[in-house]
Amino acid sequence: QLRSVLDELSAAEIAEIWDNFSNEESLRIFALIQQDKRSDLISELHIYEQEHLIRELSEGITKTLLNGMEPDNLVDLIQSVSPELRSAVWEQLSEETRRETTFLLRFDEDDAAGIMTPRYAAILGGITVAQALKFIRKTMDEMETIYYLYVVDKLKRLNGVVSLKDILRANDSDRIEDIMIRKVIYVHDDTDQEESARVLENHGLLALPVVDRFNRLLGIITFDDVIDVIREEQTEDIYKMGAMGGNTNSYLETSSWGLVKKRIPWLIILLVAGTITTNVLHLYQDLLLAAAFLTLFIPVITQTGGNSGTQSSTLMIRGLATGELHFRDIGKVMLKEIIVGLFLGITTGVVILTRAYFTPPGIEFLPAIAIAISLCSVVIFATVLGAFVPMLIHKIGFDPTVAAGPLMSTVIDVCGLTIFFEVSKRILTL
Amino acid sequence: QLRSVLDELSAAEIAEIWDNFSNEESLRIFALIQQDKRSDLISELHIYEQEHLIRELSEGITKTLLNGMEPDNLVDLIQSVSPELRSAVWEQLSEETRRETTFLLRFDEDDAAGIMTPRYAAILGGITVAQALKFIRKTMDEMETIYYLYVVDKLKRLNGVVSLKDILRANDSDRIEDIMIRKVIYVHDDTDQEESARVLENHGLLALPVVDRFNRLLGIITFDDVIDVIREEQTEDIYKMGAMGGNTNSYLETSSWGLVKKRIPWLIILLVAGTITTNVLHLYQDLLLAAAFLTLFIPVITQTGGNSGTQSSTLMIRGLATGELHFRDIGKVMLKEIIVGLFLGITTGVVILTRAYFTPPGIEFLPAIAIAISLCSVVIFATVLGAFVPMLIHKIGFDPTVAAGPLMSTVIDVCGLTIFFEVSKRILTL
Ligand SMILES: [Mg+2]
Ligand SMILES: [Mg+2]
Ligand SMILES: [Mg+2]
Ligand SMILES: [Mg+2]
Ligand SMILES: [Mg+2]
Ligand SMILES: [Mg+2]
Ligand SMILES: [Mg+2]
Ligand SMILES: [Mg+2]
Ligand SMILES: [Mg+2]
Ligand SMILES: [Mg+2]
Ligand SMILES: [Mg+2]
Ligand SMILES: [Mg+2]
Ligand SMILES: [Mg+2]
Repeated sequence: QLRSVLDELSAAEIAEIWDNFSNEESLRIFALIQQDKRSDLISELHIYEQEHLIRELSEGITKTLLNGMEPDNLVDLIQSVSPELRSAVWEQLSEETRRETTFLLRFDEDDAAGIMTPRYAAILGGITVAQALKFIRKTMDEMETIYYLYVVDKLKRLNGVVSLKDILRANDSDRIEDIMIRKVIYVHDDTDQEESARVLENHGLLALPVVDRFNRLLGIITFDDVIDVIREEQTEDIYKMGAMGGNTNSYLETSSWGLVKKRIPWLIILLVAGTITTNVLHLYQDLLLAAAFLTLFIPVITQTGGNSGTQSSTLMIRGLATGELHFRDIGKVMLKEIIVGLFLGITTGVVILTRAYFTPPGIEFLPAIAIAISLCSVVIFATVLGAFVPMLIHKIGFDPTVAAGPLMSTVIDVCGLTIFFEVSKRILTL
Repeated sequence: QLRSVLDELSAAEIAEIWDNFSNEESLRIFALIQQDKRSDLISELHIYEQEHLIRELSEGITKTLLNGMEPDNLVDLIQSVSPELRSAVWEQLSEETRRETTFLLRFDEDDAAGIMTPRYAAILGGITVAQALKFIRKTMDEMETIYYLYVVDKLKRLNGVVSLKDILRANDSDRIEDIMIRKVIYVHDDTDQEESARVLENHGLLALPVVDRFNRLLGIITFDDVIDVIREEQTEDIYKMGAMGGNTNSYLETSSWGLVKKRIPWLIILLVAGTITTNVLHLYQDLLLAAAFLTLFIPVITQTGGNSGTQSSTLMIRGLATGELHFRDIGKVMLKEIIVGLFLGITTGVVILTRAYFTPPGIEFLPAIAIAISLCSVVIFATVLGAFVPMLIHKIGFDPTVAAGPLMSTVIDVCGLTIFFEVSKRILTL
């Protein structure tokens, strides 16, 4: 009865609930899953679940399992498992799987070739539509997709592409060369995976061919792999915005030490940079003695400055990432941010004035005015700087994502405090 | 010669460079673009570029243009243009386009039905493979995809699905009912677009059927629309992490006032919440008078606390969003974060001790120890809280994304200062 439930579920659906099972349960359940679903299932599991299965299952079962995996997923598995297990896995691969895997392992994980599959349908241009259809029918079970047929010459150089739709539209006796599209959209093996994803996306393609520098077809990237890339890059960007570097491995499978390594570098860099505020405060010690109430507003000034800077930098980072914004828009952007900054500055100024003057601890009117005008200045400055810095970082060729959030608010802590004290000093004529 | 360059480019490629052209240039260039590429081009443009073209082009041209658009893209355009232009657009639609559009406009933009196209291939189960092939050949130019054929009954209820691959595998005389997959993966019209995207993604489908509550087929969602949804939701999440709400419209097409509306609510909420720090500092005024050096470290303590809290909350938010983490993992997570927090706390403590004692402004040894132990405590607290809060928000059924970054660091400012003063007071025995 459990078996019939499992039969109803797809490999992806079983994978999603897999972490509900204990180690022993997962082995018992695995035994109940249909043979042809097992390889897809293991591809979808987290690496520690994959390792557990490979370690515990009998050799006969893992052999079928591993050799039945799609080559790109098998390569991902080999690249992620621990070194001891890697040789055990290798032992169990068939001659043919090894050949395919060795070919794929040559390429960088983050490049187009790192996400391609060598199981594409390639035909020669000289054959007829009827011959092509016959060929597809014969080989379709080995192909990742048969909806695009790639036309190559004897040296495997990519000359054209024809969709199954074009094939159905044509007559049986038409030659492929005459109906194929000659201007093929492709990427090179060393094109970044993120850029390759954009190419497939922009052209609305199901699959994208990957060629080497001699224009020889190496493999294809399919839309589902592109979705994986988009998700992965999304995680990467979100981690960067949260001041973390390193890999995007899953949280649970990363050791505490791994998490520390991911988090400590930025934390220390920001801490050391942030200690400049200590010197700024030391510089204004006399002012703080003369107007002690200023101290009460230090955190709220730095926090609000940081928030408005984070907002601008987030907008810039997203605009630059989606390709909507370019450095040449800097004039328009600065103008807009100055206007927005004025609005935000005045509004937050009014809010803090009300809060500081009317509610506990309650300060005098002139001091409250000083706080309000200082906050207003800090917010305007932060809003503009928050937009400018990512633009600049992008212009000089780096990824502006790191400039969001924590880094921006650290920079604004230092500048914001200086603005705060200078403005207050003048208003209070101290 | 410009025309021949344009002929070489796809609609998406032209759209990408479109914002390089001035308003007049864009009209001249549009006139050079092949008729059949124009509708795809306008679908890919930003809304303000779409509005400009519709306003400036002659009525004959816009008529062909609009009626040639894919229905889901046309609906998106109608939903985004200004009200005056909307009626002008409507005037130019043919009877048939209006019928299709009216049908699609009934549904919520953010739901499955909001991204579907009604141009799917549907067949009856009783026909043979040969008849199905003949039908596909005749209708394929009107369909968004012909690679999946949906099998419906006379009332349009979805009974099965058959891929073109299955059709090619079968014999001409086989009946569709006998080769179709009866367990169709589908979504309902009111399923959230993000969830629909996950379904297509998890099953590696090219297209996903959308049905109403009577199981009647309404349309299909294709993989390219899913990619758009993933990108859009990504922008939404990144904006939330940057403390912004509202729509995900492009930056350039949003007015300054629109940007202010997007940014001011969170800025004010965080400002008001952040002013609690004023009361905290007021409470510890005597301590600050007795140990003035503490003031120097206020920003660095709050900033570092905020950063470590942001790191934890970012990890949680990502894990919860990708479905890797669940509330039931809270035990494991807390344990891990306590260990990580200890490491991070001790390391940052040692760094600030060195910085405070050995470099200007340079404070005494016991005060430096007090600062170091306080920072260590704040970092441990922030690390654990940063992991706990998103878990809790998720548990009670809200989106934890808002808890990242700014909100987290505001909460930590308040708690962190209290910890800072209490710990220092005890070490300095004041
Ligand atoms: Mg893959
Ligand atoms: Mg790979
Ligand atoms: Mg693939
Ligand atoms: Mg996948
Ligand atoms: Mg990358
Ligand atoms: Mg990136
Ligand atoms: Mg801060
Ligand atoms: Mg669309
Ligand atoms: Mg829509
Ligand atoms: Mg579509
Ligand atoms: Mg698209
Ligand atoms: Mg949504
Ligand atoms: Mg979301």
